[in-house]
Formats: sequence, structure tokens, C-alpha cells
Amino acid sequence: MPVLQSPADPARSAIELDASEWVGHETPLASLRGQVVLVEVFQMLCRGCVSNGIPQVQRVRQTLPDVAVVGLHSVFEHHEAQGPQSLRAFLYEYRIGFPVAIDRNDGESIPVTMRAYGLQGTPSTLLFDRAGQLRLHAFGTVSDIALGAYLGVLLSEHGPEQAVGAPTETTGQLTR
Amino acid sequence: MPVLQSPADPARSAIELDASEWVGHETPLASLRGQVVLVEVFQMLCRGCVSNGIPQVQRVRQTLPDVAVVGLHSVFEHHEAQGPQSLRAFLYEYRIGFPVAIDRNDGESIPVTMRAYGLQGTPSTLLFDRAGQLRLHAFGTVSDIALGAYLGVLLSEHGPEQAVGAPTETTGQLTR
Amino acid sequence: MPVLQSPADPARSAIELDASEWVGHETPLASLRGQVVLVEVFQMLCRGCVSNGIPQVQRVRQTLPDVAVVGLHSVFEHHEAQGPQSLRAFLYEYRIGFPVAIDRNDGESIPVTMRAYGLQGTPSTLLFDRAGQLRLHAFGTVSDIALGAYLGVLLSEHGPEQAVGAPTETTGQLTR
Amino acid sequence: MPVLQSPADPARSAIELDASEWVGHETPLASLRGQVVLVEVFQMLCRGCVSNGIPQVQRVRQTLPDVAVVGLHSVFEHHEAQGPQSLRAFLYEYRIGFPVAIDRNDGESIPVTMRAYGLQGTPSTLLFDRAGQLRLHAFGTVSDIALGAYLGVLLSEHGPEQAVGAPTETTGQLTR
Repeated sequence: MPVLQSPADPARSAIELDASEWVGHETPLASLRGQVVLVEVFQMLCRGCVSNGIPQVQRVRQTLPDVAVVGLHSVFEHHEAQGPQSLRAFLYEYRIGFPVAIDRNDGESIPVTMRAYGLQGTPSTLLFDRAGQLRLHAFGTVSDIALGAYLGVLLSEHGPEQAVGAPTETTGQLTR
Repeated sequence: MPVLQSPADPARSAIELDASEWVGHETPLASLRGQVVLVEVFQMLCRGCVSNGIPQVQRVRQTLPDVAVVGLHSVFEHHEAQGPQSLRAFLYEYRIGFPVAIDRNDGESIPVTMRAYGLQGTPSTLLFDRAGQLRLHAFGTVSDIALGAYLGVLLSEHGPEQAVGAPTETTGQLTR
Repeated sequence: MPVLQSPADPARSAIELDASEWVGHETPLASLRGQVVLVEVFQMLCRGCVSNGIPQVQRVRQTLPDVAVVGLHSVFEHHEAQGPQSLRAFLYEYRIGFPVAIDRNDGESIPVTMRAYGLQGTPSTLLFDRAGQLRLHAFGTVSDIALGAYLGVLLSEHGPEQAVGAPTETTGQLTR
Repeated sequence: MPVLQSPADPARSAIELDASEWVGHETPLASLRGQVVLVEVFQMLCRGCVSNGIPQVQRVRQTLPDVAVVGLHSVFEHHEAQGPQSLRAFLYEYRIGFPVAIDRNDGESIPVTMRAYGLQGTPSTLLFDRAGQLRLHAFGTVSDIALGAYLGVLLSEHGPEQAVGAPTETTGQLTR
């Protein structure tokens, strides 16, 4: 079981999701400030994503409404079969109600956000605390009990406002 | 539990799979003569197909090698996201080793074979006996025990050669 | 996947369930004549029986009502914890509606029927054809598809009456 | 999803497990001081306990080693079939490695601890914080994600020593 990283990890400061498009939702970044955020990195034709990763985050949404869930569609193979139009059909058929960002493709086979976070593949789960710091990066499957425990710990932490006594405009956000 | 139809059902005589293309395999029709055949009708973005129908026929293949399994990709929605190139990526990612026919699209929203068999949707399972007659048509999920029992019954039946004492060129085939 | 034995296997002729007691049911042996019979050999404190074997035969009962299911409680360990009174509580809590025979204990650690059939442990599944001959003996878990297929084959076979053209009083029965 | 109770709930102060016997372990109460404790209340012949409750706490043990798990065998039916000797056989067969207390029977059909906590049945899950206060009481099944989250929250809380700045001998314990 991977461990939650210290919030002070200097290599993992402010968050960036570099999206070429948000599918079916306005950019949710402003609304994520101060929240515990789960980013599910997936590909629509990735079997482990469809059978494990996506059902798990749907269970998280049903169980822990205080956790903000967003998807990141990071296509690094079968580009032609996993374009925006195909993704929309997939999200409709799988009843995916959370916002999904399409990871920006700059011509490399691996998209920008995936490279920036050094993700090893899909599915990957990223957990960010209320201050917007990356606290967990797990490739593959995490058990429901472990994921629940990580989220319970992060939900228990005070946000930056409470911690430092003042609201801030520049922390706790998920920016692109 | 649906019941096996009588082989003499006159409304369900010779079989026709009208394929615009067989993906990744030569047309397997000649090799299916005299065999018990399971046709799994699916769409690559149909959630019930991916979670139930396709895993079930993969279990059939592992368990009952004497049953010939073929897929029929009958696209009646999200046509642009489920084209041949996308299907090839799907079949690769899901390690689908059996032959898959693409149901012919003649401009109607429902493809030709799907209309001809009056299929209600996907997934659907069609079972043909050694004489090439349709014996079961099930929409949705059939339990593994029921499907195993149907196949056991059909495997127990003699083919047309044994039954009539002579090989035939014109029965027991899956034609398109 | 084990294979169905030939019905003519001379080492496996007439069936004998040596029961010290039938729990909750009259002795069902007369009613089993001419039927396909599944005997589930189990112990109430055997984890594989509780998690796999018993749920599977309950699925068989729901799916294939023409198969006669009986249980055989063959206790070879924890004798004091798996006596008749404990078994009755177990059968009640697990909603087991099929007849259960208690395998006779003659002072040996392994009970009589278990020894007679050379069973290796629990759960074991025994399948008998309409003529009362043992056709399958599987220790451990058989997949639902395989079990369904075996049963489909056996259900397809004619009973001794049909096969030999005359009813018989002395075949096709499960005797103790 | 039930919610964690406030630690100051006056109706749920000091913990009492009234055990007539601890099976296979020394009384673990002293070692539980200052720890987050999960008490799984079960009966060995309770189907929901065997299929859901016990496997879940075994997953908790594998995943969250900082959570102390104990069982409480609260027999309120089939007393004769669920005695200490039968329980030992059950614990052996199900590979249950955590300490199990037998809830004291004082002649009433419902045992003492079960009555004291007002438990509605089995399985029930009780969560205690590091100060020994009951924080969750759930009857039936809690999802893995929810249980993980509760435990994550409780693990995040400081024990009474850290909170009040001094070790105490009289809080944070599970007493009987």
C-alpha cells in the first residue's frame, strides 16, 4: 500500500491539469479550491480503467460526496480511436457524471499532464489535499479500504484558510 | 431462463451473418460447418457487453473448446465512435482472440444482420446447432450455468452427417 | 476441466449414499430414480464449501429445476462441532432447501460414503446419470459453465427406460 | 452511510467488552490502549458475517496494520451449535488471526455486551477512537470505501496523550 506523501513535498507543489478541453462541464477548477480532489487518469479503451478504476471512483462519489472527483483522459495509444467524439460517446454510455479533462496533446505520444506528473500508465489515481498539493500518486489498482483511508485522512485535514487563519486566492486550487 | 428452440423451427432455418468485414481473421464460415456456434452480438461501447457478455464468452472459450465462438459487432448507436479502426483498437486491448464480423451497415441506423434476426439490443447471444439452425436467442445476460447447459445439450446432438448417415455440403454452415 | 466418464465404467456402477440420517426431508431416494442427480459433498465448517460449493448448487437449483440436488455431509474433521444439531442450525441459516444426508460414521475418521467413493475432500461434486451411474467426480471448484455443460449433456441422455425400451425397478436409483 | 459520532457523546463513554473467554489469545485489552480499534461483532453461523463482515475485517487487517481488530462472538440464536468448541473449529478453518472475545451469556438469550451496546444483530461493526470512545456503530454491511474513510479519520486524530499533553493510565483503554 503506497503512503500519503508529506504535504510539504517541494517537488509536488502547485497542481496543473493541462486540458485541451473539458468534456460536458465548465472548467471546474475554481470550484475545487479548498477541497480534497481525486483525479482519475484513464483511457476509454484501457481495460483496467473500465473494469476497476472508473467503477471505484463512482463508488467514491456515492460514498464520500465531500471529495471532488475529476477525470483526466490521458491518451498515449490508439489516438485515433480515443478522440474527443469517441470519448463523449464513452462518457454517455458509462454514465460518467464527473468533469473530464482531455490531457493536452502537443504532438508527443504521451500527453502533457501525463508527462509532467511522470505517470506510468492508466489507470492512475492522484489525490490532492485542500491546499492543492499532490499527496498520493498510485498507478494501477488501490484497494477500496486503502483509498477510503487516504481520503479520510485528507478530509480530516484543515484547509489552508483554517490552518493559516486567512483565506488565500493563490493556494488550494487546481489550475491548468 | 429461456428455452432451447426446436431445431425444426421453420422461421429460423439457414443462418446468415451479413458482414461488411471480418476483423483480424479470415472469414471463418467454412470452418464452422458441423459445429456448435455461439455468436456474441455486441458493441464496443456497450457497458453490459464489456462487463458481462464478452467476459462470459471468453470463459466459454476457455472451458468448452469444442464450441466455436464468433463476435458480431452490430453498431446501432455512436456510429462514428465505433467504426472499424476503433473496433480494432478495442479488440486488441481486450485480448479478444475470436473472429469478429462487422454487421453490414446499409444506411439504416440498425445494421442488416441485427434487423434480420430481430435482435433487441446488445449484448445478445445466439446459439446455432451443428446443422446451422438457430436454437437460442437471448438478449441481455444469461447465467453461466444456463449457458453451459444449453451448450452441453447442443454438443450432445449429432451433426447432420451422423444423423442422416452422410456428409453434406449444404447443411450445417454459417453463410453470409 | 474434468471429463464426463463413460456410463459403462464398471468400477462405478450402482450408487450408494450411506446415510445415518436425512436432515429435514424424508429419504428422497425413490424420487431420484430416472433423474440426473447432483450430490454436493460438504462440511458445514469448510470454507470453500460455504463460499463456492453451496452457492453454486443453489444456482443450479434455480436454473435447472430438472436436476435433482442432494447434499452429503461428510465430516472428517471437527466432528464435535459439526454434529447433527449443528448441521440443522447451519442448514436453517443458509436457507438450504435440498435434502441433506449425513454420511455414516462408523468410528473411522473418514465416514463411510466418503471412503467408498474415494473422495479427496470437500467440496466435492458427484454427478449421476438417469441410470444411476456416477459420471463425474470433481474435487474442489468446477466453473459454472463447465458444470452447466456436464448437466446439459446428462439431461440430454435418455433414461434407461427410453434407452432399453422398458421400465426397470432396479436401475436408476440412489440407494443407501 | 452512517456518520462518525462526536467523541464527546456522553452516552458512549468508556468501553466494555464483557468476555467470558478470549479464544486463542491472551486478553488484548492492555495492548489496545491508545489505538484505533475495530470490534467485529459476529456469529459463526451468521451468513452475512461469513460472506461479508469477516472478509472485510481481514481486508482491513491486511491494509491498515495500525488498526487493532478484535472479534466479539455474540451468540443470540443456535446457542448449542455455536459454543466455544465449535467457535474454535470455525476460527481455525477461516484462518482468523485476530483475538476473539466470547460475549458473556448470563442466561438471557442476548449476551451481556450485545445488550449493553444495544446491538441490533450480526454482523455489527464498532469503531473506537484512541481515547476508547465509541465513534461508529453500524449494523449490517458498510462499504469498504466508507469503512476505510472512517478509519482514516480516526487514525488522523491524536490520542489523548498528544491531545492533552500527558500520558494517562485511565483513558484509551478497552476494559471489560
